[in-house]
Amino acid sequence: MVFLKRKDFKIKRYKKSFDYSYTLGPFPTFELVLTKPETIYKVFIHSDFNEKKRLADICNKNNVAYEYNDKIFSIISNKENNYVMGVFYKYDSVIDNNRSHVLLVNPSDMGNLGTIIRTMIGFNLADIGIISPAADIFNPKTVRASMGSLFRINFQYFGSFDEYRQSNENHELYTFMLDGKTDLYNVEHDVENPFSLVFGSEAAGLDDSYHRHGKSVKISQSELVDSINLSIAVGLGLYAFSKDNNI
Amino acid sequence: MVFLKRKDFKIKRYKKSFDYSYTLGPFPTFELVLTKPETIYKVFIHSDFNEKKRLADICNKNNVAYEYNDKIFSIISNKENNYVMGVFYKYDSVIDNNRSHVLLVNPSDMGNLGTIIRTMIGFNLADIGIISPAADIFNPKTVRASMGSLFRINFQYFGSFDEYRQSNENHELYTFMLDGKTDLYNVEHDVENPFSLVFGSEAAGLDDSYHRHGKSVKISQSELVDSINLSIAVGLGLYAFSKDNNI
Repeated sequence: MVFLKRKDFKIKRYKKSFDYSYTLGPFPTFELVLTKPETIYKVFIHSDFNEKKRLADICNKNNVAYEYNDKIFSIISNKENNYVMGVFYKYDSVIDNNRSHVLLVNPSDMGNLGTIIRTMIGFNLADIGIISPAADIFNPKTVRASMGSLFRINFQYFGSFDEYRQSNENHELYTFMLDGKTDLYNVEHDVENPFSLVFGSEAAGLDDSYHRHGKSVKISQSELVDSINLSIAVGLGLYAFSKDNNI
Repeated sequence: MVFLKRKDFKIKRYKKSFDYSYTLGPFPTFELVLTKPETIYKVFIHSDFNEKKRLADICNKNNVAYEYNDKIFSIISNKENNYVMGVFYKYDSVIDNNRSHVLLVNPSDMGNLGTIIRTMIGFNLADIGIISPAADIFNPKTVRASMGSLFRINFQYFGSFDEYRQSNENHELYTFMLDGKTDLYNVEHDVENPFSLVFGSEAAGLDDSYHRHGKSVKISQSELVDSINLSIAVGLGLYAFSKDNNI
């Protein structure tokens, strides 16, 4: 925990190699305090923050250290006038093999990854597998796009699809591909078994080898676009598979 | 056309007040050249671009000026190593009153706006109304998120919902609200009439006054999120309403 050796913690531009990251803005920071208080180094609150009493109360209730500190917000890149920041240690996580998953193969965009996590929590699916190389789930941009839903999700990185499959061999696989065999409108899934919704990268999608796994699913779309955005495709998949979830 | 007075065009950091904007990256630039060649000032191509022959050919075919120029790419903010840029004049556009629309009330995020436009073109719905104040449709971030689909869409800004409604009074309105009366899974629409899918801002959604207009629609979601992302909600709406479109 390198930065704790300092007498005064100094915020730095985030790097993937850090063992900590941070939330910027009220919503992700409240989510952090409410769901992962044990990971928090400290919450920083600007004196102009309009809910500082409420945040301080919630920090106290969860044994989270906080500090009123205006100066720290002038140091960070703060285009959006954030008045709250949570600094937390990264933590390990594993996915639950008995529940349904989203599996992303090499997602590269942190905004997409965060938006997908937010959508998953919105549709009550809380386990995400990620095949490396992939975007950093703890990057502040991912945290931000997730609106703090990251702290409610189980996640696990895998070195390859085979590695994922070995530990989750009973999941029914639905591979989303532009040339998928079944239209998403017509897909029916067995609500008794856990499923995995599998999506490729923004740039390349899933390669042909994925036709060998499970059922391939197509989202019909116009030829005027290369494809729809990855986070939209995942959103449509989650929505279709949540129909029987009674959210 | 201020910048044309200069002997040498100099790229500047984009401002909304400019009468021109630009595309960065191959896909949006190819879309620009193919669909709106008459708006283009010039296409700039870096000597390292791997499709420069194809782009030059398409520019020639569409009477678009282009220039090999490496220096210009060192001036612009070029984190993503773009090797192609199209500079184009902003143009006016109106939506078609006989076709279905997406109507966004005060969207503020340029990434969302661009992603929504890309999804619309993906689902063959090519007219978007936007109630001001709202994000700038020509901002390079919007253009980028749209992947150039912006150039295929009709758009129109309105000062208020009433102003929109006056010129589109026959559209069946579907207002997307967290407390909407009909679940999106169960919405049926008359395929004979044009519809408008209406969405509020990222921060506030649609206010209660919208319950007075048309049918309100709910996307069921967990209470663990404030709401799903706007571009995801629009994607789900478009998908549900496209079922009978035979894309």
